Amino acid sequence: GSGVKEVPAALESVTEAHWVFPNDMQLASRNYRPETREVKIGDVTVGGKTGNTILISGPCSVESEEQIRQSSELLKSLGLTALRGGCYKPRTSPYSFQGLGLEGLKLLAKMREEYGFAVVTEARDATHIDEIIEYADVIQVGAKAMYDQGILRACAKTQKTVLIKRGFGTTLQEFVQAAEFVLSGGNENVVLCERGIRTFETGTRFTLDLCGVEWLKHYTNLPVILDPSHAMGYAYGVAGLSRACIALGVDGLLVEVHPNPKVAKSDASQQLNHEEFKQLLQTLHPIAASVGYKMV
Amino acid sequence: GSGVKEVPAALESVTEAHWVFPNDMQLASRNYRPETREVKIGDVTVGGKTGNTILISGPCSVESEEQIRQSSELLKSLGLTALRGGCYKPRTSPYSFQGLGLEGLKLLAKMREEYGFAVVTEARDATHIDEIIEYADVIQVGAKAMYDQGILRACAKTQKTVLIKRGFGTTLQEFVQAAEFVLSGGNENVVLCERGIRTFETGTRFTLDLCGVEWLKHYTNLPVILDPSHAMGYAYGVAGLSRACIALGVDGLLVEVHPNPKVAKSDASQQLNHEEFKQLLQTLHPIAASVGYKMV
Amino acid sequence: GSGVKEVPAALESVTEAHWVFPNDMQLASRNYRPETREVKIGDVTVGGKTGNTILISGPCSVESEEQIRQSSELLKSLGLTALRGGCYKPRTSPYSFQGLGLEGLKLLAKMREEYGFAVVTEARDATHIDEIIEYADVIQVGAKAMYDQGILRACAKTQKTVLIKRGFGTTLQEFVQAAEFVLSGGNENVVLCERGIRTFETGTRFTLDLCGVEWLKHYTNLPVILDPSHAMGYAYGVAGLSRACIALGVDGLLVEVHPNPKVAKSDASQQLNHEEFKQLLQTLHPIAASVGYKMV
Amino acid sequence: GSGVKEVPAALESVTEAHWVFPNDMQLASRNYRPETREVKIGDVTVGGKTGNTILISGPCSVESEEQIRQSSELLKSLGLTALRGGCYKPRTSPYSFQGLGLEGLKLLAKMREEYGFAVVTEARDATHIDEIIEYADVIQVGAKAMYDQGILRACAKTQKTVLIKRGFGTTLQEFVQAAEFVLSGGNENVVLCERGIRTFETGTRFTLDLCGVEWLKHYTNLPVILDPSHAMGYAYGVAGLSRACIALGVDGLLVEVHPNPKVAKSDASQQLNHEEFKQLLQTLHPIAASVGYKMV
Repeated sequence: GSGVKEVPAALESVTEAHWVFPNDMQLASRNYRPETREVKIGDVTVGGKTGNTILISGPCSVESEEQIRQSSELLKSLGLTALRGGCYKPRTSPYSFQGLGLEGLKLLAKMREEYGFAVVTEARDATHIDEIIEYADVIQVGAKAMYDQGILRACAKTQKTVLIKRGFGTTLQEFVQAAEFVLSGGNENVVLCERGIRTFETGTRFTLDLCGVEWLKHYTNLPVILDPSHAMGYAYGVAGLSRACIALGVDGLLVEVHPNPKVAKSDASQQLNHEEFKQLLQTLHPIAASVGYKMV
Repeated sequence: GSGVKEVPAALESVTEAHWVFPNDMQLASRNYRPETREVKIGDVTVGGKTGNTILISGPCSVESEEQIRQSSELLKSLGLTALRGGCYKPRTSPYSFQGLGLEGLKLLAKMREEYGFAVVTEARDATHIDEIIEYADVIQVGAKAMYDQGILRACAKTQKTVLIKRGFGTTLQEFVQAAEFVLSGGNENVVLCERGIRTFETGTRFTLDLCGVEWLKHYTNLPVILDPSHAMGYAYGVAGLSRACIALGVDGLLVEVHPNPKVAKSDASQQLNHEEFKQLLQTLHPIAASVGYKMV
Repeated sequence: GSGVKEVPAALESVTEAHWVFPNDMQLASRNYRPETREVKIGDVTVGGKTGNTILISGPCSVESEEQIRQSSELLKSLGLTALRGGCYKPRTSPYSFQGLGLEGLKLLAKMREEYGFAVVTEARDATHIDEIIEYADVIQVGAKAMYDQGILRACAKTQKTVLIKRGFGTTLQEFVQAAEFVLSGGNENVVLCERGIRTFETGTRFTLDLCGVEWLKHYTNLPVILDPSHAMGYAYGVAGLSRACIALGVDGLLVEVHPNPKVAKSDASQQLNHEEFKQLLQTLHPIAASVGYKMV
Repeated sequence: GSGVKEVPAALESVTEAHWVFPNDMQLASRNYRPETREVKIGDVTVGGKTGNTILISGPCSVESEEQIRQSSELLKSLGLTALRGGCYKPRTSPYSFQGLGLEGLKLLAKMREEYGFAVVTEARDATHIDEIIEYADVIQVGAKAMYDQGILRACAKTQKTVLIKRGFGTTLQEFVQAAEFVLSGGNENVVLCERGIRTFETGTRFTLDLCGVEWLKHYTNLPVILDPSHAMGYAYGVAGLSRACIALGVDGLLVEVHPNPKVAKSDASQQLNHEEFKQLLQTLHPIAASVGYKMV
């Protein structure tokens, strides 16, 4: 209601004990703030009237300095500014590669120092959230971690940008409620990321929910980023889906690229190689332009 | 296997009693025929190397001569050639509007005669499939009817184009198997239509499965048409989704448009009005061009 | 509302053109008629205050006279009175066994004559619904056919019992609406059958929705029958699930049994053999008794 | 394979860095250990050949000493030995009641001291897992937390029993993999809890997956406990479902009961009142007996 609009000042003093609003999806709602929020990914601002669509890319996992440097060189050569890479992998099985941990974070920091990237990396659980907040420019809250209040409440106390991925079994309303934990806790720098939901269809890894993205754009004031790589699960479909995402008009795209996908330690089937990635990027520019956006 | 490729001649003499192949998804497979099939929607050919994306549009239901004529005038003014409209509505409830039936088919035929459209209309069940085959240029097999062998087997015995919609609870494999009923029965003029699957998300009517479309394009040789109107269920998301579909590179788009959506007798919430539809079409041309397609 | 309760007389003259009620789920609702309806399966009445749980069993498909006679002997020896067997199989693929058709119906009729069974068999589509109505005692409308108005409207014009299976992608509300087509068309002899819905879980064939059964029992006045065989898809789970269904307190159970499941022409993995079936039945009696029902 | 069976000794020295087995679902598999494991819930052993079905009950949330004492009196009067109650509630919204936290844990400990109960309570995230491990007899890993490796790895280092709930979007395989994190980390005291999955059906809160339970019993050696309260979401269906669960033959049942459900601070609609709970328990004994189990 209209009462909601009168309390933005109060927001600054929100604490866990005294939530401002009695109901759900308030700070993220266009009823509360009609225009899309501006949020920074490194030096790039997305949302608002910027018309920017940021391309965040890099390998699924940081595997070695050589590998992450190859990725960095690729991004640099294409003028991209945001590097992603997982260090604490939320693997379903204990018998899979679990990530390099702190060592990986240090490699990402090194790349930031050398190449000037904004670093996007994921917190697996609350035990290392402080490390992630220290090393990352953008804290990714993964699909399996997005109900984790240990993570969400820690994210609320920093001013770094938080990229929340939708859980694969999560409704749109619950997704926005996760963002409310961060927003109402004092950090307004939140972006949402749709990465595919789990349905009865198993021919593809997940089902990218673009209807849901239209819902998010219609009802919420948060920038929205799409991750076609995890949704599809197979490299053959990533380029087409990326083009579809861009034509929808979104604030960012998250695409996995690996110097040699066949030997990747995680998500081998869905990562593009460097050549495929370069070709993809070229095709995105005119589509972005035709819907009033600019790839950055 | 390779044996499959040697029997296309046999296809012509296929009968219900003697199916040619022992396994599933054969005639529709790129292993059997690598290139996308060419299929006609009226005078327009889609698939193959045509690069055509046909826009099929019109109201959800044929409601009156005045209404369908208004739709026809709109399509004509925009240079469109394919008119859709339901006459036998597969309503879930017996207490909803059930369609004009044969009277509606006659109105569609009248529009074809006056405007030269290809008429696309739906068979609800096998009791009136002969009427539909007689009056339609493209026989639509709806999402609720796509397991109906009475319909599929009748469609196999005509040479008219058959547009099969994916059931909302139907896997990609089952979807293609429905096409196999028509293909193996002797009619090669089949196009597939993704129109949204049912998932746990209820914020939108259905979930448009673009990952699945990439799968269909990768594994099958059938042209693919997308229906964002039924997937979204709300007019606010139809334009964005239509742009995403076109950027994916598809053979056709099915969009519902109504002279006055508020008074529509079915699917009122998802139909565009004439002004919205015109604006949408303008935005589709450059996107189609950027992926090597042409809106027709 | 209360108005609804005053029109039962009108029901008798309902026609397709003049539906009695403006809204959905009316005749099936406990608001319209609070007590569970009584419906006959051959000589057995279920529903109402009968406390009967009927066990309907037999093979997935009628394959030969020898096979269906073996099934009949088994049922007879156990005192069972309802024989099921498919003649027109709604196979997803055109390259699978499609059933014996009319020949199968005649075999079922022969079994009825010799053994006195109530015959339960399925209509695949509207083209042979008249045959099914002629030969069956209980007309089964299968999961893939339950939106088929050609079938539903024909079922409304007979007084034979109609067993409607829930589609695997069908909501509870839509399921009941299918029953409304029959009820409002003039046939009050309808039973509902839950047989598993399609979910993201593929370890089992479908997911038996017992929560949904509680919903049906709470909101509708129709008898409910459960089919654990199709839900599970594997014989190892059928006995346990059957016991669970009986403990829920239901009006019937549909279990597939085959003289030699390994060579069954359809659903080989889920059919019990005769020994397993006999053992199962013994365990059901005390459970039924403990919830106030009697296996018949 | 058989190689797996030869390494149980190695299990004792498993560390995070050196997982014993290269593949998934090994320690939990019946291929590794054919018989169901024995696990203790307080003084009661479930699994193995015990034939025990333990009833774990209590309110959704610990709300006050008076409330939890009323629950304790009820359980005591019925001879029950396991008390559940949430202190850190994994609420989807930041604007809902979040639980009493440490104060609630102390109330549970007090009840244990006075009444001798085994206390079952839930870790919401890794930030308070040490507290939970300290205060609980059975550490519940909730549906939203079951991918949380911070929690799972901590649980692997205690010898207290860990009850892992299946995520509502979690496949059976992923569910078992969560257990592998605990088992392979050194704690063999794990029980699985099915509590409903999220499907397209919204008439009930979730869909209790009894087919999945049959799968778990068939393939894994872990005791299985069922939670019909959360699955159904409405008190009217909890008794029927509880009976179905017991007839399936399971190691435990988790039922929410509240002195006055209408004023409950969470899950008000699904908790039974004391009278309903007592009546339910009476009906469970004969069903358990008829499948060779004993309610404890």
